[in-house]
Amino acid sequence: MSAIPDLSSISEAHERVSPFIHRTPVFSCKSLNAVAGANLYFKCENFQKIGAFKARGGMNAVLSLSAAERSKGVATHSSGNHAQAVALAARENGIPAFIVMPSNSAEVKKAAVLGYGAELIECEPTLQAREDTLQRVIEETGAILIHPYDDYRIIEGQATAAKELIEDTDVIFDYLLAPVGGGGLLSGTSLAAHYLSPTTSVIGCEPAGADDAYRSFKSGELIPQTNPTTIADGLRTSLGKKPFEIIKKYVGDIVLAEDKEIIAGMQMIWERMKIIIESSSAVPFAALLKNKDRFQGKNVGIIISGGNVDVNKLPF
Amino acid sequence: MSAIPDLSSISEAHERVSPFIHRTPVFSCKSLNAVAGANLYFKCENFQKIGAFKARGGMNAVLSLSAAERSKGVATHSSGNHAQAVALAARENGIPAFIVMPSNSAEVKKAAVLGYGAELIECEPTLQAREDTLQRVIEETGAILIHPYDDYRIIEGQATAAKELIEDTDVIFDYLLAPVGGGGLLSGTSLAAHYLSPTTSVIGCEPAGADDAYRSFKSGELIPQTNPTTIADGLRTSLGKKPFEIIKKYVGDIVLAEDKEIIAGMQMIWERMKIIIESSSAVPFAALLKNKDRFQGKNVGIIISGGNVDVNKLPF
Repeated sequence: MSAIPDLSSISEAHERVSPFIHRTPVFSCKSLNAVAGANLYFKCENFQKIGAFKARGGMNAVLSLSAAERSKGVATHSSGNHAQAVALAARENGIPAFIVMPSNSAEVKKAAVLGYGAELIECEPTLQAREDTLQRVIEETGAILIHPYDDYRIIEGQATAAKELIEDTDVIFDYLLAPVGGGGLLSGTSLAAHYLSPTTSVIGCEPAGADDAYRSFKSGELIPQTNPTTIADGLRTSLGKKPFEIIKKYVGDIVLAEDKEIIAGMQMIWERMKIIIESSSAVPFAALLKNKDRFQGKNVGIIISGGNVDVNKLPF
Repeated sequence: MSAIPDLSSISEAHERVSPFIHRTPVFSCKSLNAVAGANLYFKCENFQKIGAFKARGGMNAVLSLSAAERSKGVATHSSGNHAQAVALAARENGIPAFIVMPSNSAEVKKAAVLGYGAELIECEPTLQAREDTLQRVIEETGAILIHPYDDYRIIEGQATAAKELIEDTDVIFDYLLAPVGGGGLLSGTSLAAHYLSPTTSVIGCEPAGADDAYRSFKSGELIPQTNPTTIADGLRTSLGKKPFEIIKKYVGDIVLAEDKEIIAGMQMIWERMKIIIESSSAVPFAALLKNKDRFQGKNVGIIISGGNVDVNKLPF
């Protein structure tokens, strides 16, 4: 696929993945509305399979493969949610998955990938080693690479979260907020809003310590992230080319939040909403509180991207 | 009211409280089903107003008062969820609430009660001081006492959680599990099952370190709790007379869980379901895992009683 996904390709992706994923609930919370001075609607992808929205894109990418491609299996490198997403999608499709993970990945994440029946290939914990190892695995097995975000099939899949949020809520959103790391979720969210709720402005929310999307968006040129320093570990990655192309066209703005604001927002959501969200998922709420005037009295949808947290190592 | 609540009084209570409370969702979790070897349905009262089922009973008790009674306001002593439940119910009804709390109560709990506009009266942290202070407040103000569990209006209100669970789930439950402290929730649950799902066996789940309900149930005589030692702080209280009368008739069994099992169950629910539950709410799941054979392949409803946790002081 070589063109930006249109509405029918997103709708087809949604039909394709729906039997395999959860239609997650939309939560509201009076006390957080009072804190924010806005009407907030949280799309709870922390309740999604594998605990994160990445199940959507991974599933769509694998389901989009031809029979010939599927027969060879799929491969990726990831230390996080994308690894589990690809492993789950492969299992559901009865095909092999080869997952390259840095040797210092959390044992619980390795166990999850193995639990889905994937083949785990460990490598040195450097980006170079990850890419080299993945390349070798693909050459040896013929497996198809499933990139975590620089892929229209992934973007289509991630778009289905915002599509459901728009369909399942009886308000017109003034804003939709999503975190941005590689850009798969944000670009998909902006496409869903563009096609299904064109008066809605989509805003990307990024940690100040990994602000490449912000700088790229403001300058119009893709600026890679070097040395990210943020607690939001899901958002340290560099923005991808295909997501950036979409974000430039369809995203209204990108705003930043500091780590201490992210941690405070995360704790507030835990305490008031009684749901477990990962730090990356707190970035939109933190950014909203930092820019309260802008969102005053507005209807704001927020994608809660995931809930995979080590509860023994909390930042508060 | 002097008789055990019948179906119509529970249905009336449900109609009475419904405009003021959340109809909380029922969650399932494939991975916990696999761990348990049973089909589990969690009624998520952690998402209830004030973060606990106690909003139901408190609201029903206040709404059941006559206009003359209401005019004098309501009073109770509590260091926990019941305090907030009465404060919320009073605010919603526009009447005064007088809440006696021990001076060493968590600041966040005092703040919550004040936040609902109640009058907070602090006392020494002993049961005697709490009861004496409450007595004085009632004498001075004429306020009506709202007991946390030894009151049929409270029991009717708590029964509505199981009523909703039965109505909102398309299975016949083999078992319904609820934690037991004072017995309001367990007795209400057993009444709801008796009237609405008579083939369902209701089982009370209690911490081994505060096993007065277990000992009372087995002996047939009400045995007060002395020196409870359990992390499940919501369940340290002694079983009430009115709840016991119902529990003896309509509860199938009471089972125990050790603190370390409660903590492990709590962590498992946090990690797998991505929801925040308090330690007391983990007792039924922990007791189920301890008695796996009994529940093998069964449909089991579990009341998650609340989610009010100090996230800075977790037991894991």
